[in-house]
Amino acid sequence: MPFHTTRRVEFGDTDMAGIVHFANFFRYMEAAETAFLRSLGGSVKLVWEGQPIGFPRVAASCEYLNPAFFEDLIDIDVRIEKLGRKSVTYAFEFSRDGTPIARGKVTSVCCKPGTKPMQSIEIPASFRALLEPAGGTAS
Amino acid sequence: MPFHTTRRVEFGDTDMAGIVHFANFFRYMEAAETAFLRSLGGSVKLVWEGQPIGFPRVAASCEYLNPAFFEDLIDIDVRIEKLGRKSVTYAFEFSRDGTPIARGKVTSVCCKPGTKPMQSIEIPASFRALLEPAGGTAS
Amino acid sequence: MPFHTTRRVEFGDTDMAGIVHFANFFRYMEAAETAFLRSLGGSVKLVWEGQPIGFPRVAASCEYLNPAFFEDLIDIDVRIEKLGRKSVTYAFEFSRDGTPIARGKVTSVCCKPGTKPMQSIEIPASFRALLEPAGGTAS
Amino acid sequence: MPFHTTRRVEFGDTDMAGIVHFANFFRYMEAAETAFLRSLGGSVKLVWEGQPIGFPRVAASCEYLNPAFFEDLIDIDVRIEKLGRKSVTYAFEFSRDGTPIARGKVTSVCCKPGTKPMQSIEIPASFRALLEPAGGTAS
Repeated sequence: MPFHTTRRVEFGDTDMAGIVHFANFFRYMEAAETAFLRSLGGSVKLVWEGQPIGFPRVAASCEYLNPAFFEDLIDIDVRIEKLGRKSVTYAFEFSRDGTPIARGKVTSVCCKPGTKPMQSIEIPASFRALLEPAGGTAS
Repeated sequence: MPFHTTRRVEFGDTDMAGIVHFANFFRYMEAAETAFLRSLGGSVKLVWEGQPIGFPRVAASCEYLNPAFFEDLIDIDVRIEKLGRKSVTYAFEFSRDGTPIARGKVTSVCCKPGTKPMQSIEIPASFRALLEPAGGTAS
Repeated sequence: MPFHTTRRVEFGDTDMAGIVHFANFFRYMEAAETAFLRSLGGSVKLVWEGQPIGFPRVAASCEYLNPAFFEDLIDIDVRIEKLGRKSVTYAFEFSRDGTPIARGKVTSVCCKPGTKPMQSIEIPASFRALLEPAGGTAS
Repeated sequence: MPFHTTRRVEFGDTDMAGIVHFANFFRYMEAAETAFLRSLGGSVKLVWEGQPIGFPRVAASCEYLNPAFFEDLIDIDVRIEKLGRKSVTYAFEFSRDGTPIARGKVTSVCCKPGTKPMQSIEIPASFRALLEPAGGTAS
């Protein structure tokens, strides 16, 4: 079962074509991912030797099926599509009253804090333990 | 030869990870596409029976290779990857001093103005005539 | 009594200083204004001879008292500060657990649809009737 | 003499009213401020005991005089309106072909790096020495 959340389209999300600007769906995805992680419980600190771990994105994509409009209440389903050793891919389905709006994916890589260039690390066991029951299958 | 433009990273483009927020690359792509079209000349009006034609996006994707930082001057190369009967796909390469930053694609469909739901139409011959010499191969 | 709503700070709302980027408070204000208007009921259509009326902003301001951070749940109070013949000024108070975050104002002018340059008109009686009980005092 | 820069309006800057969304003028101000500071020369490092100094905003305001549209080339004049002991206020004038578009102000306070809550400090002499010839009058 995917995690479900909703999002109300704001005036500032639209563009002169009268629809939600395509780049905003990536912000919607990120907020839905955060809501999903919050739903799993805040007891696990995403830290590595005391510093917060980063999850920079390495890939993002979206297919737009139907436009979304100001004040629409968008349904968003979030699934873990792939849980790798160092990365996680989330899949998102956007719809309004059953009409599909968009489908997107975002892949993030677990990185050591404060490294420049960023240095990927294995997803901590505590975080993996949260994600696996939520649908992430190890790979 | 791709079309080349540049973009200076603004403070507001960054996020708390200290790098350009991933969704902003889609705004960068759109602005680079506009600059590319402007470079082809403004003599062709994108109208259909007197109304401006729309080019809603049907797909967008990006791979992130290295982070971009505040005040970076990003090089952006724009190519037409595919020129279809009703759609056009642009490909973008982002780099800084030769270091690759990101690679993205956006596909837009030519649509009749003011239709809801949007109704796709063939790309007008005048617009196609502009795009083909710029590297778009009919398909 | 002001209208109350909340807003969860998203990752993409932050900047490299680790706090909500100052421009985003204007988006927060707009969304809070929309939520306030929605709370007044959707029975009144904001139309003028069948076309939707516009409310372009003529002034906006914000004072920043304390930074807001990722995942903060911000309390937002919305009041009508002034209800003019053709314009309305909203005032917003942002706080987190009682700590003041910011105070802002936005003034919008009622405009005829589709005019360029925009042409201001009196706020329709039906809309005024909604706003006055909500705290707008005619002036 | 104010510092002058320009800005091309992007598609994603517009909203469903067909004009630049009012919140985006604050991003335009910030980018113009950065361009202004860059024009003063990069030889002065804004550091305090080796760490980059922050300039969080404490106030921002804008009056909107005429709408701006997609692809407009906006002229932006930047002046230092007030140079205080710990703060600086910039004033911005936006116009298009001589038509005024907007007028805005942003006030920032000089803060010690990495303090939470932020702790204001005096503007370093080296930075003040840059700003004063640019029109900042001590106060």
